[in-house]
Amino acid sequence: MKKYLALIGIILTLMACKEEPKTITGPETVIDTVEEVDPLPSWNDGKTKKAIMDYVEDVTNSNSASFIPVANRISTFDNDGNLWGEQPAYFQLFFAMDRVKALAPEHPEWKDQQPYKAVLEDDMKALTESGMKGIVEIIMATHAGVTTDEFETIVKEWVKSAKHPTKNVGFNEMVYQPMLELLDYLRANDFKTYIVSGGGVDFMRAIVTEVYGIPSEQILGSRVKTEYDYNNGSPIIKRLPGLEYNDDKEGKPLNIQKIIGKKPVFASGNSDGDLQMLQWTDSNTYKSFQLYLHHTDAEREWAYDRESHIGKLDKGLDEAIEKGWTVIDMKNDWKVIYPFELK
Amino acid sequence: MKKYLALIGIILTLMACKEEPKTITGPETVIDTVEEVDPLPSWNDGKTKKAIMDYVEDVTNSNSASFIPVANRISTFDNDGNLWGEQPAYFQLFFAMDRVKALAPEHPEWKDQQPYKAVLEDDMKALTESGMKGIVEIIMATHAGVTTDEFETIVKEWVKSAKHPTKNVGFNEMVYQPMLELLDYLRANDFKTYIVSGGGVDFMRAIVTEVYGIPSEQILGSRVKTEYDYNNGSPIIKRLPGLEYNDDKEGKPLNIQKIIGKKPVFASGNSDGDLQMLQWTDSNTYKSFQLYLHHTDAEREWAYDRESHIGKLDKGLDEAIEKGWTVIDMKNDWKVIYPFELK
Repeated sequence: MKKYLALIGIILTLMACKEEPKTITGPETVIDTVEEVDPLPSWNDGKTKKAIMDYVEDVTNSNSASFIPVANRISTFDNDGNLWGEQPAYFQLFFAMDRVKALAPEHPEWKDQQPYKAVLEDDMKALTESGMKGIVEIIMATHAGVTTDEFETIVKEWVKSAKHPTKNVGFNEMVYQPMLELLDYLRANDFKTYIVSGGGVDFMRAIVTEVYGIPSEQILGSRVKTEYDYNNGSPIIKRLPGLEYNDDKEGKPLNIQKIIGKKPVFASGNSDGDLQMLQWTDSNTYKSFQLYLHHTDAEREWAYDRESHIGKLDKGLDEAIEKGWTVIDMKNDWKVIYPFELK
Repeated sequence: MKKYLALIGIILTLMACKEEPKTITGPETVIDTVEEVDPLPSWNDGKTKKAIMDYVEDVTNSNSASFIPVANRISTFDNDGNLWGEQPAYFQLFFAMDRVKALAPEHPEWKDQQPYKAVLEDDMKALTESGMKGIVEIIMATHAGVTTDEFETIVKEWVKSAKHPTKNVGFNEMVYQPMLELLDYLRANDFKTYIVSGGGVDFMRAIVTEVYGIPSEQILGSRVKTEYDYNNGSPIIKRLPGLEYNDDKEGKPLNIQKIIGKKPVFASGNSDGDLQMLQWTDSNTYKSFQLYLHHTDAEREWAYDRESHIGKLDKGLDEAIEKGWTVIDMKNDWKVIYPFELK
């Protein structure tokens, strides 16, 4: 039944989408019909979509007082829960759990040892009880001990076949179609699009270029420690078990300064971990734009704001509302959530 | 006399440069004369220039087995002694010394305290005797304690008026004209040009975009520690006295992986500190190019290789020769050194 409702929704959506072609008349008109292409077709018309487009049109208009030179059109996007889903847990955690299972034959001791035992028995309750300490242990056991090249191959292989536990589609299909359109729209207007995420940078790099069109050098994230090894003339970089950089909260503006060296003019996030990046962008002397995604769609995606597995979310949303940043109401602003709904 | 010799050199050079226009004939020819533009006019014809151009023509030819997709055309350049000079000391040290003088009124104790005393008295011998410890102390005293925005302004103001002690031109004029042409040539062939230097990243960023056309996000360098401060709604990033990252030796390939996430196909350096970056690039599965600048021109620039204020240089040059990397013989390969010679 839900499926049919969604189908009807898409059909209505596509019908609403279709605009009448405009006819331009005038002495120099050689082309008499121009169909305006909507750059954000998966966004419902309304104040959110209008705010985005008004901003982009203003700052790219060389006659506007708010014009921003191309070199300064830096936009930064959080990833988890912002460009793709993050429920019922960060997708990277599913990767780590699958790696624990793949590596288990080499670690017979894991079947009696938490948090590995919980993973091997698909006991999410016990895994959750192991807390952040348990999760960090699993991440380190599965993200280190290989070279950077090997890790890239492992992630690429994983994403080919791994399925989301409830939606039963690939994790790389659980990206938000309206955000893909927004990334394209910004790039078409000469913005550089960056990801600035608490997720692992090399995990994202192995997946993200293909799904978002963002190259590895425009992805900032958390990192494990690494070591260079000349390796008798075939140099390798080894991944070590230990967090080198936590690209979250204050870590976001700091990493933006370290790596990009420019303050963004456009920032997009959905949690307290993005707040400092949004504040930093908001302090730009160029006209800036802050976008905050509010997960309000329990039916098509998830609805959560104040409390979640990812911790408290109240500060970011409150400050977004207080400062008049643009808040996306997922349920009402987005016609579709995932690209596969368009098929 | 030297001036006249240089002038004669330039004139001969420009004469040698001029090629006969080629006439293309054929049934569909509409333009009957095409003058081939030399993309590297300040390079003498010879094996170095030929090696560079053969490489670029090969890897950008979509019919070649060595073709490299645009997304992988990453080139990395050391800065000091490679894109601009580094004699008689790193240019950043002159900035630090000028800052010590500017800040001296706030630090009356400095006039009796080494290494500050040496700087204030222009006593290079005593400064050199203070060793790396003294130099690090001066760098930290002059590169920290301000915000990132303030630091950028200070460097930009400094470079406007500071003069090189012997050449008596601005430090930003002491860039190598042949390397500027090489950067342009690579960019014209869709290479992304990066700086990967042991120099301070924010020091370089304040200068480099203008002189090399390289944006801040394509500059990797050493960094001091930083701290985010919400500052009652006007957030700032403070520079702290302490080295956070040393972008030298193994630090170069490691930083390339952290920040760019791709192995370069083209690397250019001039010292042992660049060796690991050259080795790393040399291990690319794409056809790669390693360029090593040998300072052989005591008259127009400086001649040094085995020993210098910057430490030993023997490993990089020896390995470049042993592995058949392309070695620039500055004296013989470069028609001019600095852009101001062209005026």
